[in-house]
Amino acid sequence: MHTPPRVLTVAGSDSGGGAGIQADLKTMLALGTHGMSVLTAVTAQNSLGVQGAWDLPAEAVRAQFRSVVDDIGVQAVKTGMLSSAELVETVAGLLAGLRVPVVVDPVGVSKHGDPLLAAGALDAVRTALLPTATVATPNLDEVAQLTGVRVEDEAGMRRAAAEILDFGPRWALIKGGHLPAGAADSAVDLLTDGTEEHWLRAPRHDNRHTHGTGCTLASALAAQLAKGDTVPQAAAAAKDYVTGAIAAGFRLGAGIGPVHHGWRLRDGH
Amino acid sequence: MHTPPRVLTVAGSDSGGGAGIQADLKTMLALGTHGMSVLTAVTAQNSLGVQGAWDLPAEAVRAQFRSVVDDIGVQAVKTGMLSSAELVETVAGLLAGLRVPVVVDPVGVSKHGDPLLAAGALDAVRTALLPTATVATPNLDEVAQLTGVRVEDEAGMRRAAAEILDFGPRWALIKGGHLPAGAADSAVDLLTDGTEEHWLRAPRHDNRHTHGTGCTLASALAAQLAKGDTVPQAAAAAKDYVTGAIAAGFRLGAGIGPVHHGWRLRDGH
Repeated sequence: MHTPPRVLTVAGSDSGGGAGIQADLKTMLALGTHGMSVLTAVTAQNSLGVQGAWDLPAEAVRAQFRSVVDDIGVQAVKTGMLSSAELVETVAGLLAGLRVPVVVDPVGVSKHGDPLLAAGALDAVRTALLPTATVATPNLDEVAQLTGVRVEDEAGMRRAAAEILDFGPRWALIKGGHLPAGAADSAVDLLTDGTEEHWLRAPRHDNRHTHGTGCTLASALAAQLAKGDTVPQAAAAAKDYVTGAIAAGFRLGAGIGPVHHGWRLRDGH
Repeated sequence: MHTPPRVLTVAGSDSGGGAGIQADLKTMLALGTHGMSVLTAVTAQNSLGVQGAWDLPAEAVRAQFRSVVDDIGVQAVKTGMLSSAELVETVAGLLAGLRVPVVVDPVGVSKHGDPLLAAGALDAVRTALLPTATVATPNLDEVAQLTGVRVEDEAGMRRAAAEILDFGPRWALIKGGHLPAGAADSAVDLLTDGTEEHWLRAPRHDNRHTHGTGCTLASALAAQLAKGDTVPQAAAAAKDYVTGAIAAGFRLGAGIGPVHHGWRLRDGH
């Protein structure tokens, strides 16, 4: 059997299975890659919010990373929840030595507004983590946290991208999904490297079950890059995958359900 | 979108993605269910062995379990690596309150011989965990650890099953994959509840890339039980899935590669 492309997520665990490394690993399998993971934190989480969180020691993060990278090797990496400045700096240091595409999802708060990143870690994200990124994928809340820019329309997305690119990633993918209703009739994202500009549009689905959207998009992007796509190709494919997963998102628990990672799979049994 | 059956794994993390909760979550997606996870430990692990392990505090295991079960609910549970007596007892206590099928994979040592269970925890497995099981799925090394019975042929598997059933699980699935070459011309497992006896046979594949076989079988069994199969139906379906996954196991790193969780999936894109 041919070895599938190898993709690594460096992120937190969501016990409910809809976000975090759970979303990443499911996405990677659904897109035909071999998913691996470096756990940075473990959360007790469900459709209603985050009930508890336990950080892994930096030493455990380093050991997991070395076990994967030195023996197995990776063709793309995605980072998600890195809750403390120490973990952000540890991961940035590990990534600086790699020569493969890195997708940085600068996770700040959960879908329910629970903080997933210590305030003191923001500066480490700006100065240490974002410079390692091939693509950074902030949503509008994360743009505001990182740059102070409050985006309210598509022109604002262009300004936000320029400010994010100033921190050093090769590409910025600004996710406009949180634009005020009326500001856009579709879910629009802007991908740019400061020269090229790609507007990614998809129908906005009337479905509240969107838990894990950000993790899923970033890990789909990493999976496509591992398969050899260019960044614009990977972003288009990832947007397509996540749009279908949102449309198929399902009820789970009393609150916000997850996107459906298996929406495009058929069991050939 | 209809909510898929919900399956929970309570197990350790394998950074390399082939075993542990990674194998479980991939299996659950491949079999059309929603996978969730309670992390008990995090390992730094690759194709060569286990380089490090960090247990979660019992409080974190309890919190994750309650977040999942109280809000989302589960239709089947699978347990894997529970490294200490305290974690075995904690998980057994949580499972005792559930009214859904429980698959207990009494993980003792890794594929490479690294111990994944403290010696002092064996008694807690026997007296607290196994009584909660709908199905217990020991391999022959775990049978020896738990019962002292050294199985060398199919008659020995019957004796092993009887001893395992004495600890209280409803069914025992004794995995004969480690039988000495020549003792069986196929990979044979015995499923029995002390009355019915089902011998599950599959061709033995000449493939050393079998990392994650035990996790995959147990989580496939849990996924099928969540979908409403009887135990004999679920065991047959799980054996079928894992046999294909072993046949498609691939090279990864310098040592033992994983089974292929996506072997039966087609992207309907």
